[in-house]
Amino acid sequence: MSYGRDAGGERTVSRGGGGLATALRGLVEQHDVTWIANAMTDEDRVVADEDQRGTILIAQGRDAYARFYNVIANPTLWFVQHMLWDLARTPDWDNTRHDAWTNGYVPVNLRMARATLAELDRDPSAAVFFQDYHLYLAPAFVRGERPDALLAHFVHIPWPEADAWTVLPPAIRHDVLAGLLANDVVGFHTRRWQRNFVRSCVDILGATADGDIVEHDGRRTLVTGHPIGIDPSELDELKQDENVLAREREIEASRPDQLVLRVDRTDPSKNVVRGLRAFGLMLDRHPELRGRVRMLALLDPSRQDIPEYVDYVAAVEREARSLGDAVDLRVGDDFARSVAAYKQFDVLLVNAVFDGLNLVSKEGPYVNERDGVLVLSENAGAHEELGEWAVSVNPFDVSAQADAIHEALTMSATERRHRAEAIRAHVRAHDVGAWGDMQLADLDRVRSLP
Amino acid sequence: MSYGRDAGGERTVSRGGGGLATALRGLVEQHDVTWIANAMTDEDRVVADEDQRGTILIAQGRDAYARFYNVIANPTLWFVQHMLWDLARTPDWDNTRHDAWTNGYVPVNLRMARATLAELDRDPSAAVFFQDYHLYLAPAFVRGERPDALLAHFVHIPWPEADAWTVLPPAIRHDVLAGLLANDVVGFHTRRWQRNFVRSCVDILGATADGDIVEHDGRRTLVTGHPIGIDPSELDELKQDENVLAREREIEASRPDQLVLRVDRTDPSKNVVRGLRAFGLMLDRHPELRGRVRMLALLDPSRQDIPEYVDYVAAVEREARSLGDAVDLRVGDDFARSVAAYKQFDVLLVNAVFDGLNLVSKEGPYVNERDGVLVLSENAGAHEELGEWAVSVNPFDVSAQADAIHEALTMSATERRHRAEAIRAHVRAHDVGAWGDMQLADLDRVRSLP
Repeated sequence: MSYGRDAGGERTVSRGGGGLATALRGLVEQHDVTWIANAMTDEDRVVADEDQRGTILIAQGRDAYARFYNVIANPTLWFVQHMLWDLARTPDWDNTRHDAWTNGYVPVNLRMARATLAELDRDPSAAVFFQDYHLYLAPAFVRGERPDALLAHFVHIPWPEADAWTVLPPAIRHDVLAGLLANDVVGFHTRRWQRNFVRSCVDILGATADGDIVEHDGRRTLVTGHPIGIDPSELDELKQDENVLAREREIEASRPDQLVLRVDRTDPSKNVVRGLRAFGLMLDRHPELRGRVRMLALLDPSRQDIPEYVDYVAAVEREARSLGDAVDLRVGDDFARSVAAYKQFDVLLVNAVFDGLNLVSKEGPYVNERDGVLVLSENAGAHEELGEWAVSVNPFDVSAQADAIHEALTMSATERRHRAEAIRAHVRAHDVGAWGDMQLADLDRVRSLP
Repeated sequence: MSYGRDAGGERTVSRGGGGLATALRGLVEQHDVTWIANAMTDEDRVVADEDQRGTILIAQGRDAYARFYNVIANPTLWFVQHMLWDLARTPDWDNTRHDAWTNGYVPVNLRMARATLAELDRDPSAAVFFQDYHLYLAPAFVRGERPDALLAHFVHIPWPEADAWTVLPPAIRHDVLAGLLANDVVGFHTRRWQRNFVRSCVDILGATADGDIVEHDGRRTLVTGHPIGIDPSELDELKQDENVLAREREIEASRPDQLVLRVDRTDPSKNVVRGLRAFGLMLDRHPELRGRVRMLALLDPSRQDIPEYVDYVAAVEREARSLGDAVDLRVGDDFARSVAAYKQFDVLLVNAVFDGLNLVSKEGPYVNERDGVLVLSENAGAHEELGEWAVSVNPFDVSAQADAIHEALTMSATERRHRAEAIRAHVRAHDVGAWGDMQLADLDRVRSLP
């Protein structure tokens, strides 16, 4: 979450843009947790100076934070892990990027580790849960001071194989992996990323692996694959929220016979341009559907201080314009509208290039009221769970995506219902609470390792 | 090799641009071999109609061949295997690319398989050696007709892990892998590509692996890693060739105190732009070397009918111009000049993004007469053999490449000599003949499998 000020000068709290903030909020609310995070906004920096029960906001140096966030975490690590480079041209590890590592990512991780150590002083028996690709080095800093602390790390984005990690210079990729292996548990959303992580530890560090246990430098780390879930009760409530109902009336007022929906951040990994092309190609192949089917693309603009992201939004807008009335593109942060659209879609398109899990593919079908069909990329983490009930697509195969959208639009009501119910049942049974329980069970397992 | 006509109308035979043609020519000359190849030039098509002892040139349909070569083999498969995509944007599997697969790559492979079957009719006991990424489907076509034929395949370019293969639609990547596993032996230049291939068979096909044996569909395939070598006697002769000596006098006449050399095709995988940047950065850091050190970049223009390649040459020329006199860039096909420059370099830069092996890193040090230092990318296949005697660089780390070039330029004479002699001894001992012998030993091994 992030703090700001409204027009009247009152403090506001906003929902984070990514799926991670959503998923963790539930967990944090249900346990006795201290949340340590970097201050991101000016108001965050004010909050950082106050005594916040359960929340510690770290005001990093502005320059260090900018290097950490806008050069290394996004886009360097994000681009490595989603395999988004144009390797003949980018990236360059030049003076700027090396400096951003040494004077950005490293000290930000160190400050986070120090705050964690201070909490461990206060409560030595606490378990520490590191989240995601921003904090790969912190666990090793903490481990150096607390050999017996219980440390777990969850990586919410894909983990590619060793070849992709050669985009990082040897010493840096070594420190990333060794940092993660300073934890007792390292978790991923899928068996695929789990497998890739174990292999990359073997290939890059020379670690040894025995099933899901990796041994390196005299320590053992449990590596797990637990897909995160949604919070059904939160979504049940949201469905009835006034703002959502208002948005839903707007969508209903102008809805075509059939609605193809996508809901994403404007991230190159989400593959919005190819999705638009596929929709256009589907209409070319089935002109009888023109005017009867529309694509609604709800895109939350993210990371607009990174040039690649600005360029990508421009490319999306160009592609959408070329399709005219057939596409309704909305670039903005409006979660109520997303939930309203979830209720209304006939086809939900999730065609990510690579995606750690993709919560939209769970939230959408759970909320949907029309037995809408999920078209799902084989490279989205959620495909391991939901693939059998979705229409699977290869994210690079625009032709097959066009056919998949058409297959979804023309699927029989019986088949749609069968698939939609199966997804809803799965998503309800494997919710965020179950995911949290698995994290805790992992801790019990590593505590009892011989 | 390729046939043409000179100004006087006489038939000419030219050396292929790639390392593969070089490497195989020695092998073909030393054994009783029928060479089956696609006709590439107009003169090739004339030769195809003649009765050529030992050479069968297949005149494929022009459209099918263009789809096969200019859409699928280069750049699709080449780009997949060297991980050169900008995945948020390219490739699209649209109508054009699907058509190029179905009506280009598939029928060209089928015709090649038919020619192979005709040879097997003539000599049923012959072993078949398929070469490289142009012929992934042919082995399965041959196997379907000849269950007992002895088939081996050598892949001369990198083999990436399963994630990178998702750039191909599922049915296509399945056919690529199943096609290769129709062979009795599949060979690569390194243990790294061998390992990646075994893993991708497991991940994509669900094959089982036991060490270097992969079992799929009731058949077993031996997967090997044998780095190819050079032909020392050919290079010994070339060093004394009149054309080479003439080129050498030219280089000597204008040589700086120290010469940094690169010799490559103008392929994005060769990483020429970053190499130039690194050289410029080195001069910025060590201005005392300005005027005393020059980079000579000898680039053989290749695949100039593919837009990505034309763009890349333009980017190389821009970067070189920005460095002024410090760089002597020559774009042209002049092997005599390359050999002359091999003799003269003080530092040889091989910084490929990814490279199956890289023969320059063996040819250059073998021919060199100044105890020149090899700066070698960790992602070049030859790094497995030569890394310990080279200055290793990460291909994306421009800053480290600048330091590596400086380290090589300032290395003590004793250290240079020690390393250069070690590389020459290795290259001489592991020549192309030894590589051929390993292929034959692999056949003996699979013949004797229980």
